[in-house]
Amino acid sequence: MLMSKLVGERTKTIPSEAVIKSHIMLLKAGFIKLVTNGVWTLSMPAKRIAENIQRIIREEMDSIGGQECLFPVVMPRDLWEESGRFNSIGDEMVRFKDRNDRDLVLGMTHEEAAVHFVRDSVKSYQQLPFMIYQIQTKFRDEARSRGGLIRVREFTMKDGYSFHETQDDLADYYEKVYEAYFRIFSRIGLKNFIAVKSDTGMMGGSIAHEYMLLTDVGEDTLIICPNCDYKANMEVAECKPRINEIEDSLQLEEVFTGSAKEIKEVSSFLGEISEKKIIKAVCYNIKGDSDKTVLCFIRGDLEINEAKLKKVLKAEIVPANLSGTSIVPGNIGPVKLEESSKLIMIYDKSLMNCRNMVCGANKEGYHLINVCLDRDFYVPEFHDISKVNDQDFCPKCGARLKINNGIEIGNIFQLGTKYTKSMEMKVLNRDGKEINPIMGCYGIGIGRAISAIAEEYADDKGLNWPISVAPWKVYICALRIDNQNILLKANDLYDKLSKAGVETIFDDREASPGFKFADCDLMGIPIRLVISPRSLEKNVVELQKRDGSLKEEVPYEKCVERIIQLCRE
Amino acid sequence: MLMSKLVGERTKTIPSEAVIKSHIMLLKAGFIKLVTNGVWTLSMPAKRIAENIQRIIREEMDSIGGQECLFPVVMPRDLWEESGRFNSIGDEMVRFKDRNDRDLVLGMTHEEAAVHFVRDSVKSYQQLPFMIYQIQTKFRDEARSRGGLIRVREFTMKDGYSFHETQDDLADYYEKVYEAYFRIFSRIGLKNFIAVKSDTGMMGGSIAHEYMLLTDVGEDTLIICPNCDYKANMEVAECKPRINEIEDSLQLEEVFTGSAKEIKEVSSFLGEISEKKIIKAVCYNIKGDSDKTVLCFIRGDLEINEAKLKKVLKAEIVPANLSGTSIVPGNIGPVKLEESSKLIMIYDKSLMNCRNMVCGANKEGYHLINVCLDRDFYVPEFHDISKVNDQDFCPKCGARLKINNGIEIGNIFQLGTKYTKSMEMKVLNRDGKEINPIMGCYGIGIGRAISAIAEEYADDKGLNWPISVAPWKVYICALRIDNQNILLKANDLYDKLSKAGVETIFDDREASPGFKFADCDLMGIPIRLVISPRSLEKNVVELQKRDGSLKEEVPYEKCVERIIQLCRE
Repeated sequence: MLMSKLVGERTKTIPSEAVIKSHIMLLKAGFIKLVTNGVWTLSMPAKRIAENIQRIIREEMDSIGGQECLFPVVMPRDLWEESGRFNSIGDEMVRFKDRNDRDLVLGMTHEEAAVHFVRDSVKSYQQLPFMIYQIQTKFRDEARSRGGLIRVREFTMKDGYSFHETQDDLADYYEKVYEAYFRIFSRIGLKNFIAVKSDTGMMGGSIAHEYMLLTDVGEDTLIICPNCDYKANMEVAECKPRINEIEDSLQLEEVFTGSAKEIKEVSSFLGEISEKKIIKAVCYNIKGDSDKTVLCFIRGDLEINEAKLKKVLKAEIVPANLSGTSIVPGNIGPVKLEESSKLIMIYDKSLMNCRNMVCGANKEGYHLINVCLDRDFYVPEFHDISKVNDQDFCPKCGARLKINNGIEIGNIFQLGTKYTKSMEMKVLNRDGKEINPIMGCYGIGIGRAISAIAEEYADDKGLNWPISVAPWKVYICALRIDNQNILLKANDLYDKLSKAGVETIFDDREASPGFKFADCDLMGIPIRLVISPRSLEKNVVELQKRDGSLKEEVPYEKCVERIIQLCRE
Repeated sequence: MLMSKLVGERTKTIPSEAVIKSHIMLLKAGFIKLVTNGVWTLSMPAKRIAENIQRIIREEMDSIGGQECLFPVVMPRDLWEESGRFNSIGDEMVRFKDRNDRDLVLGMTHEEAAVHFVRDSVKSYQQLPFMIYQIQTKFRDEARSRGGLIRVREFTMKDGYSFHETQDDLADYYEKVYEAYFRIFSRIGLKNFIAVKSDTGMMGGSIAHEYMLLTDVGEDTLIICPNCDYKANMEVAECKPRINEIEDSLQLEEVFTGSAKEIKEVSSFLGEISEKKIIKAVCYNIKGDSDKTVLCFIRGDLEINEAKLKKVLKAEIVPANLSGTSIVPGNIGPVKLEESSKLIMIYDKSLMNCRNMVCGANKEGYHLINVCLDRDFYVPEFHDISKVNDQDFCPKCGARLKINNGIEIGNIFQLGTKYTKSMEMKVLNRDGKEINPIMGCYGIGIGRAISAIAEEYADDKGLNWPISVAPWKVYICALRIDNQNILLKANDLYDKLSKAGVETIFDDREASPGFKFADCDLMGIPIRLVISPRSLEKNVVELQKRDGSLKEEVPYEKCVERIIQLCRE
């Protein structure tokens, strides 16, 4: 490629919403251009990086028996009615009508399409297991797109679906994908990533893992044990049970607390009493059923984990609207409060064995003190609905847990039979019985992978691509291009590298050395070759790696050979 | 790939709407599966063929300086408002609203996205010319999808856009694309294809060519000169001017013709008078302006070419609704009929110099005879609005023209400045003047290419892929797989071929030879290898080409080498 013809908006003007490194540098280098909120055009170098990532993904998916297919972007409503997701998924799914008034949707994931594709022809366990995958465009109407290619509305994704006779077989295959994903992320150059247990969300299923790039700018919160291999997304993270010290029960009393409502205010009003000694109440409504109030009780120093709560409730939740109820916000407590058809009460495990606690008196301006479990209120069942924090200890080894931020770069799910059951896919197992095959599904977002690599490698000067995914391996800077000898040599080198299969971009512009070096650094091309009057004199080429690990002069004749060697390393 | 695990619905039950060879065979071989009207899933072999075609397209596009980008499928309304196409394109474009009530569209073509991508950064003629292209999913809500992948609603397309300083430069580049397209279609194996002049339709622009696979089942009608290089789509085809013989003018008369309205009926009523001697009238309304009637007059033996008519009118047309007008259907004639703000009259060139014609008397039940141009009616301007037919002669060399059907497999357009002007893309030319760059655009449908190849090569036994695009080059049929020796040899051959980079599918199923041979033929794999007890005894492999051009026994040890040689040929 000739730099003089490369289209892309290399610019210094960066909009204020670009705050993370990868977003800023991809914009500055002209790799991406916003078309509308969360929808981007990729320029040639970004597309080449995407292709390199896709090639690596294909190789690894094929190596574990994947069959690449192509499912459609547009699907009919009835397919999504079958799985129940036409109604269960909210505004993030685009729905529209065609010219004949039939309902269509834009795919955000393809479980339905995968089952539809195979259910008529796969009838026997002998055809199992298999995995089909595609690399295709998806659209998800995110409320808040951000971070360049990190959170977008239109994206390219590799999504794979495996089908199994037994849970054991799924577990075996899941392990293979788990390993293949490590190979993929390593091969595209990522280093600082981990796999964590994760929530299965709208996908259904039980076990799931997310692959996370560890970075301060990540929007996911991860709980990591520094001592053992325990790692989980905050949404599902657990910890060692928290101990409430055994105390003698004191006399229950009602005390005036005035306008003190928040935990901090109540603690302060009552003489800096520990937040651990206060029962916090948090209210929600069940989504689509505003009559139903969910009242959660948890120890005052902890936060509600809404992902866990949703699982307990098996329902979506929204912030509560308490008008029209007898609940007194800020003075809610479990004593003498009864469950009803309109009131669901959920107790976090942190309240087990609690004594002498403070809680709202269900009366404006008053709290109760010395509240004791079993004496003053009764809990039929405790649930884990708390967020783990850095005061908690590892559920596996007991070490103090750490918190990290991460960007999700991939995910794998054990889906179970949610889709094969609802969509009536049946095969005969080896005992001649009809079963619904057990599914796994496996995703990697291509754009997000580009951003993750950019985030891990970019520096103040710009992007910095690992050689495995770089849009071009080599950038030829010809200085003083008006010098015929230099132009000839540079062109010759460009030809030779291209013929040797080394992807090369040749900066043929009449521009200053500084300008060319800056663009080369900004675009993050791994190897820079400089041909200048000085190098010409010595019959060498100045070779420098973008990561600063190498700077050398190579005899002109040996240059191609040396580059090939560097690309192989 | 192991045949036992290949997913795809090989079937004998073909729906009645599948009438053409490629559609039937792609279904039978399980290469495609309908998801909803005009929307398909591609199975692994079809996806591999698509990838092979895409690789060839990329190589040829890159060889003429193309830069592969990726534009979005979903675009905002305002981009399409800028070009004017949000309103000018009908129901075939999908429009929907996002969660914030903003209007979005699904891209059916990407001129707008291409101009949007480059207009802020390309400012000087020095950055011109360039060509950007993508291979991406598109959606077009076709009223009638048909023929498998031939006419669909969702499709993958290579679309390219070039930008130029001058028309001459565009013309030069257009020629390069013209040649590259010949190379592409040849390399993917097509033989019986031609490029024809075509209509520019909704794309705008002047010169355009379509690449057409010649086949009886094609939905396009092509006019071809068997003597010179003249070739055109019916929509734009011209012919040598038709001569009306000079006659003495006879006396104008009104005659009773009763219920005779159609040309045939009038001819018959008047004693089998030649259709050439009758003036045919055809009515339309201007789309969106039902008040305006368009009245076309043409020689009775000819048909109106609506594509040409639209160009003359510079407007879309719909079938006429004559209620409320004074026009008498079936008795319309040009004599004493006057143009008005509500009536546009268009005369075809076939009426030049006509004398002693029959036409409607604008009076129920009557026609005029001996109508003469200039004496009885006056024509300010003639237009070419006729369909060329096989009675016509070549406009270039005068030979009698032929008619062929074709399937469009690609198209190229000289767009001009339609998009750069409306979307205000400006660059400084070499004289320092601001100009709108001149664009070309270039499309190839991937699915349609798959169907075209299938259509050209398939036979009664099934598909038949040229080696350049075949999903696998080799199909290993191991007969009597229960024989350990055979299984070992077959596996060994499969490994060796795979390691040598020869894409191979191994039929490892316990099935009869006939069953395996039939599947191999149905799927159209170019080279079949048979390993059987008989061949094992002779230490050979039976090699046979799908096209019947080769059948030989190859020593087992020489097999890989021989295959590589065959793949190169």
